[in-house]
Amino acid sequence: MKLRCLDCAHTFPPTLRYACAACGGILEVVGESGLEPPPGLPAGMWRHAARLGVTDPAAIVSLGEGETPLLRAPRIERALPDFEGEIWLKDETRNPSGSFKDRAISAGISKAIELGARGVVCASSGNAGASVAAYAARAGMGAIIIVPAHTPDGKVTQIAAHGAVLLKVPGHYSRSYDLAAALAERHGYANLTTTFINPWAVDGLKLVGPEIRAQLGGRVPDMVLIPTGSGPLVEGVARGFAGAARPPRLVAVQAEGCAPIVRAFEEGAEAVTAWGMPDTIASGISDPLIGYERDGTRTLRLVRRSGGTAVAVSDDALRAAMRLLARGEGLYAEPTGASPIAALPRLLAEGLVPRGAVVVCLITGHGFKDGRAYQEMPARIHAVPAPDDLAAVARLCDAALAEKE
Amino acid sequence: MKLRCLDCAHTFPPTLRYACAACGGILEVVGESGLEPPPGLPAGMWRHAARLGVTDPAAIVSLGEGETPLLRAPRIERALPDFEGEIWLKDETRNPSGSFKDRAISAGISKAIELGARGVVCASSGNAGASVAAYAARAGMGAIIIVPAHTPDGKVTQIAAHGAVLLKVPGHYSRSYDLAAALAERHGYANLTTTFINPWAVDGLKLVGPEIRAQLGGRVPDMVLIPTGSGPLVEGVARGFAGAARPPRLVAVQAEGCAPIVRAFEEGAEAVTAWGMPDTIASGISDPLIGYERDGTRTLRLVRRSGGTAVAVSDDALRAAMRLLARGEGLYAEPTGASPIAALPRLLAEGLVPRGAVVVCLITGHGFKDGRAYQEMPARIHAVPAPDDLAAVARLCDAALAEKE
Ligand SMILES: [Zn+2]
Ligand SMILES: [Zn+2]
Repeated sequence: MKLRCLDCAHTFPPTLRYACAACGGILEVVGESGLEPPPGLPAGMWRHAARLGVTDPAAIVSLGEGETPLLRAPRIERALPDFEGEIWLKDETRNPSGSFKDRAISAGISKAIELGARGVVCASSGNAGASVAAYAARAGMGAIIIVPAHTPDGKVTQIAAHGAVLLKVPGHYSRSYDLAAALAERHGYANLTTTFINPWAVDGLKLVGPEIRAQLGGRVPDMVLIPTGSGPLVEGVARGFAGAARPPRLVAVQAEGCAPIVRAFEEGAEAVTAWGMPDTIASGISDPLIGYERDGTRTLRLVRRSGGTAVAVSDDALRAAMRLLARGEGLYAEPTGASPIAALPRLLAEGLVPRGAVVVCLITGHGFKDGRAYQEMPARIHAVPAPDDLAAVARLCDAALAEKE
Repeated sequence: MKLRCLDCAHTFPPTLRYACAACGGILEVVGESGLEPPPGLPAGMWRHAARLGVTDPAAIVSLGEGETPLLRAPRIERALPDFEGEIWLKDETRNPSGSFKDRAISAGISKAIELGARGVVCASSGNAGASVAAYAARAGMGAIIIVPAHTPDGKVTQIAAHGAVLLKVPGHYSRSYDLAAALAERHGYANLTTTFINPWAVDGLKLVGPEIRAQLGGRVPDMVLIPTGSGPLVEGVARGFAGAARPPRLVAVQAEGCAPIVRAFEEGAEAVTAWGMPDTIASGISDPLIGYERDGTRTLRLVRRSGGTAVAVSDDALRAAMRLLARGEGLYAEPTGASPIAALPRLLAEGLVPRGAVVVCLITGHGFKDGRAYQEMPARIHAVPAPDDLAAVARLCDAALAEKE
């Protein structure tokens, strides 16, 4: 195994390194450990330990991440006019800390431990931080998590519960990013920020591809819709289907209030430029990429190479998608997690979904992470001060059940 | 298959029936479907469809419940003075709606659909209601959920998100129980309340036993610690290990502020009597059993028959257990979910845990369900108004990391 620069192809030994020493480019893991899956680990992605980067089985930190359900979405299919095909939901909310980040963090922290790290740092919009806090607790390591001051309470509470040192920084996510890099260096901690900065973490995301393929009975989907901040999950999915005869087209979904990759895609630009201040309810993908625009450019290239597209969705479309997922399919997702569902009508209207297409939507984060978004929606909650008056309660139920959604 | 009365052994055909018509006793499912696991379902407990009660594969409603991780708990083991043995955590927070209730509800709603139910009703302290709301949404059925007015926001938000009609009733859980039964009858809906009332739902809990056994490499644990309201999960675990040469001793864990079964156990009583008004942070087991005291008596007998015990824990012990789980093992549990960990010191002090014992703790509900309990604990959250002053931030981190827990 080695690390290789995506830009200049320079290679480096497999250590903790966050950028190419020759050109500053993004590093990727080349090769796989071939490690026999160690006994005693919980079920999940480490069943495929051979495909990941950890060579010392004692270094593996697992809470049973990955191998999440893939669920058909019949009501979403019916809600899309003229859609013919299959919509599938890859339910990443089912990971230990409630988001897909656990795949990257389990891989990244395990490699960091193998390489001797004493602690971990992570700049996060919340979910990666919660994951790092949980895995650091499991590993008995110190953790410093840096989040924007406006991070939803559900995520802040979760990070703090695991005993991490939690720093709240004013402004957007990119300010957290710089501070994390500086603190990691200063403390001699591993940087587990889940942009493209840690190649071992990014590498952990690739197993989502083979999982989907196995769950589809060996079929490769035609399209995969991916909530996208800087885009390591796009990289993961692309890697996961590398070698398929007809790899899926990748759709990067961003929020209209923070869409640097979509903007570059639509302008036909070669490179992504940073966004200003994000303005969206989708905290998980509120990443303006200031200072690491190259990450967005990497993602843009992956999307184009796959024949896919990049699409931005409004907050209203996100709310409608959350509602459809929760009420129609039984899945409780945070705004970011519902963004692929919000993107579907646009893709269909633009004729980008071929007849009979098999479409997989990555539902990346749990609704618990950001309850406020749901609390602001209309709901059928009724106080019943006199539960013994059965006739009155029954009438109330009849009326509520008959309400138009 | 048939339903059989636990008290008078009268049998009934396999329909929706909630009590023995002859004597009012609790009904249990006798027999198993033998159903071939249908293709296309997500991984999880329906892999063992043959052992459950549903005979029509088209009736099955699954979000991929069960088959949850079993994690060793090295830091909890070390935190217990003089403990020699193994502590394992059965992480039921990983179920679709965040609690073990999904096992019962997936089994119960599927059987209800097979038997022609048009809708579902559930009286709940929150978790069962969230589960019913999610599965009813998945099934496209109407749902009426009844919860005590003081149910934590996290659970209320989740139930409402799935579009259920949510009734908030003043006072304790037992008032919700009566109303649910009345509304189910009046609306012709199935009653999925997760006391002992629905035998098909209770039957769905038994697979947790075989899972644990398989995860322990075929070993049967010496003790299983179970958060206990009325106790269907105690029944499920007992059934799950029925036939083992040496079934585990079952420990029913209750909160000091609502401990009707513990009280009866300690008094050597034959029957459980109802509790008054519950007073505990453990909302999930705040069940005073008023009107269905027989459920508690059933659980009491199961505990005694297993050679186990019943133990009550204080709110302070619950908080300490939550903290130890989250900071020591990386698991984020609601107060009820952490109750087995809170019970361990008591059991050890009383000499009830033999040397070398293999102890399984059921961690029944997710920390997201009740964030307030964590928000009230000391945490290492720091605002960083000037992130560019790296030296100052680094000093802050050093101090925070060095803090005594
Ligand atoms: Zn380079
Ligand atoms: Zn009877």
